[in-house]
Amino acid sequence: MSADWTMANEGPDTFSAFDVLGHLIHGEQTDWIPRAKIILDHGEAQAFEPFDRFAQFEKSKGKTIDQLLDEFQALRKQNLGILEQMSITPEKLKLRGTHPELGSVSLSQLLATWAAHDLGHIAQAVRVMCKQYSDAVGPWKQYLPILESKRAAG
Amino acid sequence: MSADWTMANEGPDTFSAFDVLGHLIHGEQTDWIPRAKIILDHGEAQAFEPFDRFAQFEKSKGKTIDQLLDEFQALRKQNLGILEQMSITPEKLKLRGTHPELGSVSLSQLLATWAAHDLGHIAQAVRVMCKQYSDAVGPWKQYLPILESKRAAG
Repeated sequence: MSADWTMANEGPDTFSAFDVLGHLIHGEQTDWIPRAKIILDHGEAQAFEPFDRFAQFEKSKGKTIDQLLDEFQALRKQNLGILEQMSITPEKLKLRGTHPELGSVSLSQLLATWAAHDLGHIAQAVRVMCKQYSDAVGPWKQYLPILESKRAAG
Repeated sequence: MSADWTMANEGPDTFSAFDVLGHLIHGEQTDWIPRAKIILDHGEAQAFEPFDRFAQFEKSKGKTIDQLLDEFQALRKQNLGILEQMSITPEKLKLRGTHPELGSVSLSQLLATWAAHDLGHIAQAVRVMCKQYSDAVGPWKQYLPILESKRAAG
């Protein structure tokens, strides 16, 4: 994949596909599994660490999109292994933890958010890459509403 | 993948992931490569057949998402082979055809639209699947703007 294509974003303070991947990597490292462990080990007594939504802007510096893809793949595989070892049961899904801003949340909600957060950012990355074709498609642009969509769509 | 997840859409007259896949299959069969052939063989003299954007609602009936995935994979592989055999050069990219509504378009624009149309619908399918987590994520919903996004985003 060309750097032009993966580094393009939707304007100031928006993520490129490259940024999205770094953001997902940071989530694998500091968010989903660490928070699941806190819920299982401490319940609501220990609040989660706040998640840094912009950590990737520093952490990904100097890396290539291929390096990030490899890194994400390894981390995700490792985390799914840890998740399996947690032997999540319906009872465990009801366990609760403390989010630093949102307050009481369940393990079930945390795991659903892991999936939804992923999908939302994948949709975003694909949309951003799609928009790089805005000029190349010529008159077809009017049939492709996604090319005009705002970043507010997620 | 569960049928509930892949059959859900974003409201009346919107596509589910299942519908998107059928739509992409119909494009592989009747749109991109057939139109490229018309440009290469007839130039602007023969207008393209209009593309039926809703053909999948009939064509996909009774099929499973796995069947559609297999079908799409086979068609795409076949079409990329045909594209390779076309030996597209920078000169050929400038050749023009006649779109039934848009008028004169270039082969370059057609091929860019093939890519952009794909990406736009992939972003759509992922977004629609993401939205199925709207309730499951609980209080995290406020951090996931994609869950509130309108279908108009593409």
